Amino acid sequence: MKNFITLEGSEGVGKSTQLRFLKEYCQKNGIDAVFTREPGGSEIAEKIRNIILDPSNGGMTDVCEAFLYAAARNQHLRDVVAPALADGKIVFCDRYVDSSYAYQGFGRKLGYDFVKNLNDLAIGQYIPQYTIFLDLSPEEAFARKGGADKADRLEQSGDEFFGRVYDGYRYAAEKNADRFIVIRPLGTKYETHEKIVEALKQKGVF
Amino acid sequence: MKNFITLEGSEGVGKSTQLRFLKEYCQKNGIDAVFTREPGGSEIAEKIRNIILDPSNGGMTDVCEAFLYAAARNQHLRDVVAPALADGKIVFCDRYVDSSYAYQGFGRKLGYDFVKNLNDLAIGQYIPQYTIFLDLSPEEAFARKGGADKADRLEQSGDEFFGRVYDGYRYAAEKNADRFIVIRPLGTKYETHEKIVEALKQKGVF
Repeated sequence: MKNFITLEGSEGVGKSTQLRFLKEYCQKNGIDAVFTREPGGSEIAEKIRNIILDPSNGGMTDVCEAFLYAAARNQHLRDVVAPALADGKIVFCDRYVDSSYAYQGFGRKLGYDFVKNLNDLAIGQYIPQYTIFLDLSPEEAFARKGGADKADRLEQSGDEFFGRVYDGYRYAAEKNADRFIVIRPLGTKYETHEKIVEALKQKGVF
Repeated sequence: MKNFITLEGSEGVGKSTQLRFLKEYCQKNGIDAVFTREPGGSEIAEKIRNIILDPSNGGMTDVCEAFLYAAARNQHLRDVVAPALADGKIVFCDRYVDSSYAYQGFGRKLGYDFVKNLNDLAIGQYIPQYTIFLDLSPEEAFARKGGADKADRLEQSGDEFFGRVYDGYRYAAEKNADRFIVIRPLGTKYETHEKIVEALKQKGVF
């Protein structure tokens, strides 16, 4: 789907910073872009997300979790992404299906194919035009994040979980090489920003 | 799945009454049975159901609704149905996948195949051994129900909707003829009860 760009990466890779830089870049250069993340701007999707992240729901089945993410995803598409694309805007979405491949498919061990089949039903034609993957291993990423809070349920899942999530991202990147833009954020955050802008210019998005 | 029996039918066909009669029959005859309905007995599934039925969520996409039902279904299976079947009990479940085929597939027009593909991922091997379908047209059923409350969001969807739901049930009954037990509840409720017991005896469930 033209102008639908997603950003992906493990915890602590600097996604939020890069999204902020991209937003400033768009403002400075008069690029009409919308920045969103699931379930942002969709009240129903927000209620679904609250169930997923509530630590008191620790007995949730992995399949239930995957279905809830897909439910919220469809609602957010209809409420936020589709109208903005229809208005000719570029949509940058912080996390999307590749997060489900990585977290539910590999982290929760549901398998890539299971999670893909499920999400294909939820997203229809809303396949990202490009997916910017900030590629850092969990060790590199946790070192960067430092001792930030680990309050929510997903982040209580431990280090092995995040190793699998990273494997999942790399697998998704291989399977969807046509839309993945893989960037190693090893230099300063400004250098990473410049790499992203350069890539988006090359692809004709900017 | 042996001993997993579901009950289906449009609004007002007398499902609740028949389930009560079946429960009394099992108690009298020393049959170890569990009576449940989604999301019964599963706190997480209950929270999901609350989102679906909250009238303030009228802007919910049909796909989101279908995914939420499937999410709650998987949770209820794990929390309630699977443990009871593993204990050798007969499980009677008030509504299950055929409700989704009828309500989301036909009522909401998502299509039988879409809803089946989605639910196949949620239920895995938990296909009912038998499904008792109380087969009454909406006209017959509404006449029987009379002026009962129509407070929740699903029931605000109007008469054409329920016509499609009935078509959906009949389509599901055709596609799954191997497990469907179709009963026309045209006589007294006691006569219908006897028909159900007779059918379950013939199938070797009782």
